[in-house]
Amino acid sequence: MNYRELVTAMTEPEKVDTITLGAGGAAYPAAFALARAGQQVVMVDPKGVMSGNCLAEGCVPSKAVYEVAELYRRVTAAPMSRALGALTGPPDYAQVVAWKDQVQKDRYRQHDGELQAASANLRLVPGTGRLIDSHTVEVNTTGSAKRFQAAQIIIASGADVFVPPIPGAQLCVTSRDLFALEPTVTSLPARLAVIGGGYVGLEVACMLRALGSQVTVIEALPGLLAGMDPDFVTLLAAGIDPTISIQLSASVTAVTKGDGGGFTVHYRIGDADSTVDADLVLMAVGRRPVIPDGATELGLPRAGHGLAVDVSMQVPGYPHLYAPGDVNGRSMLFHSAVRQSLVAAHNILAGNRVVDRMDFDSVPATIFTAPQGAYVGLTRAKAAEQARQVVEAAYPMADDSRAQILGDTYGEIRLFCDAQSLRLVGGWVVGADAAQLIGQIGESVAAGLTAYDLARFADQHPTAAEGIGKAARTLVG
Amino acid sequence: MNYRELVTAMTEPEKVDTITLGAGGAAYPAAFALARAGQQVVMVDPKGVMSGNCLAEGCVPSKAVYEVAELYRRVTAAPMSRALGALTGPPDYAQVVAWKDQVQKDRYRQHDGELQAASANLRLVPGTGRLIDSHTVEVNTTGSAKRFQAAQIIIASGADVFVPPIPGAQLCVTSRDLFALEPTVTSLPARLAVIGGGYVGLEVACMLRALGSQVTVIEALPGLLAGMDPDFVTLLAAGIDPTISIQLSASVTAVTKGDGGGFTVHYRIGDADSTVDADLVLMAVGRRPVIPDGATELGLPRAGHGLAVDVSMQVPGYPHLYAPGDVNGRSMLFHSAVRQSLVAAHNILAGNRVVDRMDFDSVPATIFTAPQGAYVGLTRAKAAEQARQVVEAAYPMADDSRAQILGDTYGEIRLFCDAQSLRLVGGWVVGADAAQLIGQIGESVAAGLTAYDLARFADQHPTAAEGIGKAARTLVG
Amino acid sequence: MNYRELVTAMTEPEKVDTITLGAGGAAYPAAFALARAGQQVVMVDPKGVMSGNCLAEGCVPSKAVYEVAELYRRVTAAPMSRALGALTGPPDYAQVVAWKDQVQKDRYRQHDGELQAASANLRLVPGTGRLIDSHTVEVNTTGSAKRFQAAQIIIASGADVFVPPIPGAQLCVTSRDLFALEPTVTSLPARLAVIGGGYVGLEVACMLRALGSQVTVIEALPGLLAGMDPDFVTLLAAGIDPTISIQLSASVTAVTKGDGGGFTVHYRIGDADSTVDADLVLMAVGRRPVIPDGATELGLPRAGHGLAVDVSMQVPGYPHLYAPGDVNGRSMLFHSAVRQSLVAAHNILAGNRVVDRMDFDSVPATIFTAPQGAYVGLTRAKAAEQARQVVEAAYPMADDSRAQILGDTYGEIRLFCDAQSLRLVGGWVVGADAAQLIGQIGESVAAGLTAYDLARFADQHPTAAEGIGKAARTLVG
Amino acid sequence: MNYRELVTAMTEPEKVDTITLGAGGAAYPAAFALARAGQQVVMVDPKGVMSGNCLAEGCVPSKAVYEVAELYRRVTAAPMSRALGALTGPPDYAQVVAWKDQVQKDRYRQHDGELQAASANLRLVPGTGRLIDSHTVEVNTTGSAKRFQAAQIIIASGADVFVPPIPGAQLCVTSRDLFALEPTVTSLPARLAVIGGGYVGLEVACMLRALGSQVTVIEALPGLLAGMDPDFVTLLAAGIDPTISIQLSASVTAVTKGDGGGFTVHYRIGDADSTVDADLVLMAVGRRPVIPDGATELGLPRAGHGLAVDVSMQVPGYPHLYAPGDVNGRSMLFHSAVRQSLVAAHNILAGNRVVDRMDFDSVPATIFTAPQGAYVGLTRAKAAEQARQVVEAAYPMADDSRAQILGDTYGEIRLFCDAQSLRLVGGWVVGADAAQLIGQIGESVAAGLTAYDLARFADQHPTAAEGIGKAARTLVG
Repeated sequence: MNYRELVTAMTEPEKVDTITLGAGGAAYPAAFALARAGQQVVMVDPKGVMSGNCLAEGCVPSKAVYEVAELYRRVTAAPMSRALGALTGPPDYAQVVAWKDQVQKDRYRQHDGELQAASANLRLVPGTGRLIDSHTVEVNTTGSAKRFQAAQIIIASGADVFVPPIPGAQLCVTSRDLFALEPTVTSLPARLAVIGGGYVGLEVACMLRALGSQVTVIEALPGLLAGMDPDFVTLLAAGIDPTISIQLSASVTAVTKGDGGGFTVHYRIGDADSTVDADLVLMAVGRRPVIPDGATELGLPRAGHGLAVDVSMQVPGYPHLYAPGDVNGRSMLFHSAVRQSLVAAHNILAGNRVVDRMDFDSVPATIFTAPQGAYVGLTRAKAAEQARQVVEAAYPMADDSRAQILGDTYGEIRLFCDAQSLRLVGGWVVGADAAQLIGQIGESVAAGLTAYDLARFADQHPTAAEGIGKAARTLVG
Repeated sequence: MNYRELVTAMTEPEKVDTITLGAGGAAYPAAFALARAGQQVVMVDPKGVMSGNCLAEGCVPSKAVYEVAELYRRVTAAPMSRALGALTGPPDYAQVVAWKDQVQKDRYRQHDGELQAASANLRLVPGTGRLIDSHTVEVNTTGSAKRFQAAQIIIASGADVFVPPIPGAQLCVTSRDLFALEPTVTSLPARLAVIGGGYVGLEVACMLRALGSQVTVIEALPGLLAGMDPDFVTLLAAGIDPTISIQLSASVTAVTKGDGGGFTVHYRIGDADSTVDADLVLMAVGRRPVIPDGATELGLPRAGHGLAVDVSMQVPGYPHLYAPGDVNGRSMLFHSAVRQSLVAAHNILAGNRVVDRMDFDSVPATIFTAPQGAYVGLTRAKAAEQARQVVEAAYPMADDSRAQILGDTYGEIRLFCDAQSLRLVGGWVVGADAAQLIGQIGESVAAGLTAYDLARFADQHPTAAEGIGKAARTLVG
Repeated sequence: MNYRELVTAMTEPEKVDTITLGAGGAAYPAAFALARAGQQVVMVDPKGVMSGNCLAEGCVPSKAVYEVAELYRRVTAAPMSRALGALTGPPDYAQVVAWKDQVQKDRYRQHDGELQAASANLRLVPGTGRLIDSHTVEVNTTGSAKRFQAAQIIIASGADVFVPPIPGAQLCVTSRDLFALEPTVTSLPARLAVIGGGYVGLEVACMLRALGSQVTVIEALPGLLAGMDPDFVTLLAAGIDPTISIQLSASVTAVTKGDGGGFTVHYRIGDADSTVDADLVLMAVGRRPVIPDGATELGLPRAGHGLAVDVSMQVPGYPHLYAPGDVNGRSMLFHSAVRQSLVAAHNILAGNRVVDRMDFDSVPATIFTAPQGAYVGLTRAKAAEQARQVVEAAYPMADDSRAQILGDTYGEIRLFCDAQSLRLVGGWVVGADAAQLIGQIGESVAAGLTAYDLARFADQHPTAAEGIGKAARTLVG
Repeated sequence: MNYRELVTAMTEPEKVDTITLGAGGAAYPAAFALARAGQQVVMVDPKGVMSGNCLAEGCVPSKAVYEVAELYRRVTAAPMSRALGALTGPPDYAQVVAWKDQVQKDRYRQHDGELQAASANLRLVPGTGRLIDSHTVEVNTTGSAKRFQAAQIIIASGADVFVPPIPGAQLCVTSRDLFALEPTVTSLPARLAVIGGGYVGLEVACMLRALGSQVTVIEALPGLLAGMDPDFVTLLAAGIDPTISIQLSASVTAVTKGDGGGFTVHYRIGDADSTVDADLVLMAVGRRPVIPDGATELGLPRAGHGLAVDVSMQVPGYPHLYAPGDVNGRSMLFHSAVRQSLVAAHNILAGNRVVDRMDFDSVPATIFTAPQGAYVGLTRAKAAEQARQVVEAAYPMADDSRAQILGDTYGEIRLFCDAQSLRLVGGWVVGADAAQLIGQIGESVAAGLTAYDLARFADQHPTAAEGIGKAARTLVG
């Protein structure tokens, strides 16, 4: 303990009601709710702004690029290109990035405004938080430290890109280099290699391919999108642009610098060694929870790479410690984090009694590839694994008015219902408007609706939601 | 009675279980369901194909044009145009029409296939049906006539464009001239005048404006979109391209032929007479139910311009006569017709007892303008009219990630909940993805979900559906 | 201001989070919830015990007498009396009262235990509370006064029997004299007169008639049970023991003492004066909210005889003042008060923001007469008044297995559904197990279930709940 | 084939739409629905009346006896006996039986009336049906036979008491001897031995004990009520009158005739032989499906002792053959049979397509013992078996107002909810009003309600349903 630390430790800590480690989607919804309810709340975040990975380098900026790529894909494909004519040149990637930056800046500004407008009870303290004990957080900023004592601590330290110890890994970029504000990558690579066939890798592969890159995806496992329903993955993957080279069961052994500014990715499939040359190599093998300093010393329980949590979002054994969001590794999605954060807030307001619970089984997930894919709840594989009797109902995009109107008829809507009650337990969508449709399906799963209910609703024509009702009607008449 | 009629009348009619007058969206869902259940079913339609207005000249072809126009609008607007570059020229309207025709042809082929694949019990007889008595339909085709006797008759004769007796009305085109297969209008009018500010007029105005026409809309009433919630209309209208000239409280007195192939629309606002010159004049003052021949003689009751029906879809006083779809004028939307048709089928299968009912209050409606608008259920005006206590919750598109990512931040999501139970009774969306979002909102209205339910669901990020949950959460925590 | 008041006013008030005026069903559910959540909570009640009218003199003791009376009625009626034989004598009313006292004592003991077991944050202070300002309550007990300052005040001062200024009113007893612990009335009156044909009057009339009294009910209005659905009342009333004399439109002009210890009730119907002699006269013309001292000075808004409240339970204009339960006069029932209390607690925990709302429309009410009656939600009269389109479905007790088995086949189950969605909006039950059945019906109303849902459920045989499903099935097949 | 059979076989069979084998609760609901929908329907039943076991010898008559026994139990127990006084003598069992007979006769008359009032399409043909082929049924009555050919056959032949081949089994009575119309047992046995501790045995044991018999129950398994949740059984059993002798793990080896008109039941527990003397021995080891003649020859698939069925009620492989009710052995309860019958009807009306499904998981079951017990859905044992994560919430009857008022405070209400969504998946009740409460709980399970929903409802006070809400509120605040 140096002198500064000593002084900090001796100073009486500031007492607050709740402190959040992090100021992203797992933190601020709770922070706002608690402050509005009259609690003194402090958010601690090294970035010093209200934002998690999602805005900083994740969903928001990547979808800004994605939407431009999708627009380009649509406008250059027949029949639309026949009707609208040709573009004068290829996309200007710097302008794509500029747009992405713009969106991020707008949202940062919005977040700042929300923070300003929030209750005076709520503060954002820049710095890295360290758990001193289960009620005390020390915040270290340049040249100083300060302690807070809190009745409750919400550990919402999020997750970070995982870079495996592959020789040459430092030559690779990560999603941060693509999607951070004013990112390092500002021109389109002619050749892109993606290490990792998870959703991040595959989304980037599709969007850069659409914008003009040649793309190779190298995945160590025998299938893409590990952890998702294999049949869903098969369906989705079969719709992906076949000019994207996908190498499965391919272990990357090294990344090396090539001549002329490029790189070579070395990989092995079975006994065979191969290489692929690229102008940019994206390392996308996954993200890992960020365990805050002090958590290990405190003995907080772990589950996988993350902190263990109950559905109350409480860390088992610590009713006043909550760990919503990516840090628990259970459902690493922004919207899941937001709801987890609110569950924590509701339980805190009830005096750390459990009055609200996270329903991980009704959280939708979307893969913003081309085609889009989205799913929610119990689908075929998980139902089989749990020995749940389900019946399926599907509607093919090929028959859907909206898909036909868009000229984008790949995919299907598929519903999974309890075989007896016909209560919707899950669903997936591949194709047109998947991300939108999963809202209606997911809400129905969350609310316990049945195929009987869905069948009675008159879905708007001509939208792809018609396929939801049509699928349901195959089950009930 | 001439000789042919005499022969027909004397011939023993063919006995079937159910006959449908029409073969569109109000007819074929019931026809298929009844045939699958073992009934002998005959559909009678003068077009001789399985299709109502929707496919022939309505939602499907108009949305095919709409989507091209939307794509053009997006790709030519900053910031997308900066990223993707310019198009080499203006849209090729003939190709837009070609695409629309293609979509229609594909769907006709699909319908043919469905009809082929259907039970042998189901036939489509071309011709115009006439009600002889409440169990007998005579089908007249060129040079012959045939009678069917049916236990039940489903009157699904739809609706048609209404052309008011304005001098020069015959100079105007209707939506059919734009959207029928191989339509008469195949080039973009430089100047378009639209008589009628209902949804058809406004949709065409927006899409042709987006494609390059100069557009004037002339509406007799003081507001657009008569029949919709005035506050919704105000919000929607304020987002429409201000270069579309909208003349309200403007009665068209005549349409005349101008020099050089154009037309002049004469109208009066208050005491002031005005004119607008146009290369094409669209008459879009509404559609009227098509009452089948014989219905009046039979004394079937009317409601407004349509046939009266109960929520069972039965014509009051005639348990075996059903009138789903546009013909009853209650909810002139394809998806509403489909559900009405199924309600009829379910009640027929139960022996004309009422076992299913149409819920007109949960049918969503979308206006495919720019911005899009959609609504469902009880919104502000109707709630006030019915003295229902509701609370509102809204989320502005300006704050929505998805809207920001699209660069399309006009509008809002608004929910209306019963003030006590917080049961969702209605909602509207103006802006990004309105047609998709109304699915989730409408399903929730139909299923009786509450703001409590919606607030617990983790809506997919970044989709505009997040605004649904965010709005709900303002009510419950 | 006297010396004691001066001292009190000068003393620094004790600061707490929330104070409740009252310690009954509108107060303690909130008090417990808030204390569990960590708030300092004080309940103030002149009775000095945790109990409202319900336990002290209302539902609990009256139902203890009611159940004995019901048992007596059943055991002495053919056919049960044939099977079980005769009782050796008439009921011993003193023992009936002893049983009632026993139940009350047990519940008081239980409440004491709950209070002991509650958080140390929660205290019950005996005394009468007076509002000094909107944050300060002064509690007056014998010889002392004390002030509390609270962030929130829950005004849950309940209601009290209303005794109208009729000459001789002081000769009458009230329900308190029958049902308080160790009540004044301990023997069965040979002749009972009841002034007031509301639910209290009618319940007492039925139970004392069953135990052997001769009973006359005198009601000023033309119908019994004012405020309830007239058709429900008609059905219920027609089932009541005809040996109870019911005088309607009968204004009591005086109560006088007769010879030999009895009383005479003088009343007028139209122009005709009548009298009825009785050994006991029950004054049961209604209960009135108890407005706490200081409320009027403070200018708290009123609605009818009670304090005005929003569905948030907040007093309009005072986000930190809540008035759940009888004091607002909206739904003077214990179970309604409990839920209202929890709504208040939820909103307090959210910082006086509205996150929960009282749904007065789904609160069931039961009349413990013979036959029993119960209702919930929107029934025929209210639906008509609100111009809501509803369909009805009913099942007669005469056809019900359970009712037949009990030999008690009067009455019916009746459901009211929205005419389109078939969502259950209300229901009533007259007859066997009404109080139990209203639970299933009310839960269904509250949860927004439809006749479709009810029809799919297999109600337990042979219970009267079968009638719920059977009624629903008449609507949906 | 004899002459009569030959004639029958040569005669053209009568063609109908649907034939039901049986005319009980699994048959007539479908028969009525189909006939109302216009089908020609024939019910075939050897009893020649519309009734299954339920009315003939099951739930209805047994509950008629049960209710008399319950009334006797309540009226003779303190404190009610103190208040109401003593009965002049023991119950008159002949009068109990007379009442039971009366109830049965009334219901038979009601059924006759319903049959008369039904559509002319519906006939009841007395006789035993035999399946000739999958579309043909031969009905044999005394001296004649007749064949019907049907598009669909509903096999609803029910179940019958199973009498195991124990020496002396013929000396025992079955539930039929107690509960049939004008039964053989008309006097109360001083000593009753019950072979079988299932629900029939236990119900009879309790009701006859209450009426005065000395009772011994002999069960071969180590626990009572095999097939029910062991923890539920333990709770229920602990509340049963301890003067009923219960012998577990006791195999009956023989029943012999004793001196003086009595019987001796010989049984073995482990290696020890014991006997019990009785004046009446009830054989109650279970009921078995009655497989109709011809089914085996036809090769209809079996499941356990019953016919195999899908949740559509169709016999696998035979879309036009249905086997609802006891005959499939899946859920041998009258109300389950009724719903199964309707599922069959709905699917028949849809042309033998599956448009409705039986939800066996939401069928409540009640044991009419003292105390009563009831359960529905997934309770602790089944949840564990299926590895479903559930949370429990309970409310003890000891704390319940209604139970206290009845002086009957044994038992509890227990809810089982999905651990994430808090959707109610099951529940049980032991104690006051269990049969009524299971309606509200079961409806909630069937409709997919959550603890959040239940907690918002204001359950009627003072009814035991309050415990449902109170239990739910322990989960959500």
